[in-house]
Amino acid sequence: MPVAVNFRLYLITDRRLARGGNLLSAVEHALAGGVHAVQLREKDLGSRDLLELALKIRALTSAYGAKLLINDRIDIALAADADGVHMGRNSIPTRDARRLMGPDRLIGCSTHTAKQLAEAEAGGADFAVFGPVYFTPSKAAFGPPLGVDTLRAACASTRIPVFALGGVGAENINEVIAAGANGVSMISAILAAKDPRQAASDINLSIKNAFLRHTQGQEEWS
Amino acid sequence: MPVAVNFRLYLITDRRLARGGNLLSAVEHALAGGVHAVQLREKDLGSRDLLELALKIRALTSAYGAKLLINDRIDIALAADADGVHMGRNSIPTRDARRLMGPDRLIGCSTHTAKQLAEAEAGGADFAVFGPVYFTPSKAAFGPPLGVDTLRAACASTRIPVFALGGVGAENINEVIAAGANGVSMISAILAAKDPRQAASDINLSIKNAFLRHTQGQEEWS
Repeated sequence: MPVAVNFRLYLITDRRLARGGNLLSAVEHALAGGVHAVQLREKDLGSRDLLELALKIRALTSAYGAKLLINDRIDIALAADADGVHMGRNSIPTRDARRLMGPDRLIGCSTHTAKQLAEAEAGGADFAVFGPVYFTPSKAAFGPPLGVDTLRAACASTRIPVFALGGVGAENINEVIAAGANGVSMISAILAAKDPRQAASDINLSIKNAFLRHTQGQEEWS
Repeated sequence: MPVAVNFRLYLITDRRLARGGNLLSAVEHALAGGVHAVQLREKDLGSRDLLELALKIRALTSAYGAKLLINDRIDIALAADADGVHMGRNSIPTRDARRLMGPDRLIGCSTHTAKQLAEAEAGGADFAVFGPVYFTPSKAAFGPPLGVDTLRAACASTRIPVFALGGVGAENINEVIAAGANGVSMISAILAAKDPRQAASDINLSIKNAFLRHTQGQEEWS
């Protein structure tokens, strides 16, 4: 049975941002705070180290009933029995990823334009991350953020769920959900927080309230 | 049907060593000169670029009836329909590789000790590369070469075919074949040669003569 995109808060890892460099601890606290999907994205690790880390995060995510996706590496995703893979702009074409992953596992795609979003959908992606929506230091080198109007147009242009990325926090979650985002994707707002559990819990509550407001309570909260 | 290890000259790529940076041309000439197996090993390439290159080398190797293996990346090997994967010391465990690759594709392993060779065999590897046997500038930082006696002991300790690597050339092929190697593995001796086709042809002849001498013509030449 296909894995469902039944999450609203999609945590992306960067172990250098975790306090004390302890990614496992930060991820576990984030899971305890209500993160339901984690993308392991540690591009500088060799295959063996990456698989070892993936297996540890697999154990944690399974214990919390959360999804695990691996950035770029379909081989590591399959070896670690992850729920899916997340394809970046330098990953192999989505169609090839779908062929290797089979029909049931998740494929997420990073996108920056409506065209890339359409390609992701056509290639068989289950969902997309779209951004940067707001200013974020880590993406400043790539030019100005896309803005919420571009996000709104992107969400309207596709049938797959879209997660807003880049400078998203409690102060603008309502806006991105109103713009049509299915959820939000974050790195440092949770990983680098003093208390990742509290941060995840707060953001989850913000997302929940945004959906309740936006749908007048008609949509089932997942 | 399982892919056979029916080659004696195993070329490993490094596009920076190819003359004029033209890896495709160097590989094609090497294939024309009698290379029957190529390992694509370009560790600094992103997934998309690596797959694109792999598909081009796949077309070349298929045209010449040669095997293609991809270093480390099982996902790229499967996406490019390569004959196999080659596992380095930082690759995932051989057992996991076998599970993902299925029973029929080739798995080669890089080894430096008899213990690693035994682990490769136990993990389901079809063959191993062993070295460095002789001095080679690219491996000088890892300490002195292992020497031909260590190669002989290693070959005697395993049932899988062993390819000698590191400083192997026309002048010592006879010695490594006499020590029990199934063949030889090379990078610069072919890729960086003024004429990769001639270099491959010369080395192939040296291997053939070494086997004829060593087996007194009893072994079928493949």
